Amino acid sequence: MIGLWYEDHAVGQAASLGSHTFTRDEIVAFAQKYDPQPFHLDEAAAAKSIFGGLVASGWHTVSVSMRLLVDGRRGQHQAAAAKGEAPPPLGLGRGVRDLRWTAPVKVGDTIAYSLRVESMREIRRPGWGLIGMRISGVNQGGREVCAFTLFGLAARRSG
Amino acid sequence: MIGLWYEDHAVGQAASLGSHTFTRDEIVAFAQKYDPQPFHLDEAAAAKSIFGGLVASGWHTVSVSMRLLVDGRRGQHQAAAAKGEAPPPLGLGRGVRDLRWTAPVKVGDTIAYSLRVESMREIRRPGWGLIGMRISGVNQGGREVCAFTLFGLAARRSG
Repeated sequence: MIGLWYEDHAVGQAASLGSHTFTRDEIVAFAQKYDPQPFHLDEAAAAKSIFGGLVASGWHTVSVSMRLLVDGRRGQHQAAAAKGEAPPPLGLGRGVRDLRWTAPVKVGDTIAYSLRVESMREIRRPGWGLIGMRISGVNQGGREVCAFTLFGLAARRSG
Repeated sequence: MIGLWYEDHAVGQAASLGSHTFTRDEIVAFAQKYDPQPFHLDEAAAAKSIFGGLVASGWHTVSVSMRLLVDGRRGQHQAAAAKGEAPPPLGLGRGVRDLRWTAPVKVGDTIAYSLRVESMREIRRPGWGLIGMRISGVNQGGREVCAFTLFGLAARRSG
């Protein structure tokens, strides 16, 4: 994982976020709530679709990357607290640039997510900086399935 | 709602997608699975955060807009089928540009979502065109909370 504070980041830093295997039940549960298209919900309909089988909603594949990112951050916060260090306040997401869904995620696919720091910028808001992180997911065959640049605030030590 | 087929769209067309009221339970349920940060999960922690109270994950607020978009599309498909017309195959999302979270969504907020056709482009893939739609959510006070441009395929009548 990359650093916690703004100053701990550097453009080009990269880290693994871990991986996630998409089950049928989870694909269907997400789709029922947020993206109820037949190829996300129903095996028979999905078999007749362009995908030839059930696939995860694109919003599901990016939501899972958020979960892995937050889990990593929580682990870092706990480690800092265990050493008696005060962790920084959690950063807020500001937005996303250039999100692409480039290949389907099928039942049983395991997606490995990673991030790379793309940009760092000081902002007017005292005590914070803005980090642009490219997050991408790659399936077990080495093919990228989704990627996006997430802009989030990071607290500054000097703040 | 806007047209179903590629040819039914025009740049500048706009439509309401309906609205959604965010409950505490729903905010927490999404966050537990996909964005377990304290200000999305726990009222006491959220009260001490920059938000001063529980707020929805940004990924939740955009996932709800997808649900409303799909519900609208399903209604159109059913209406077409009821008239004996064959509806087009459902379009696929290709990606997102310029997603911004501009204000928090708190418990009990009602967000009205709308879309506007921003771009239309013929693509090499026979029978399909690419539509860029700006989707935005506005709260009960008239303040935009999220917006993004979704690029999706639409089937062509001529295809």
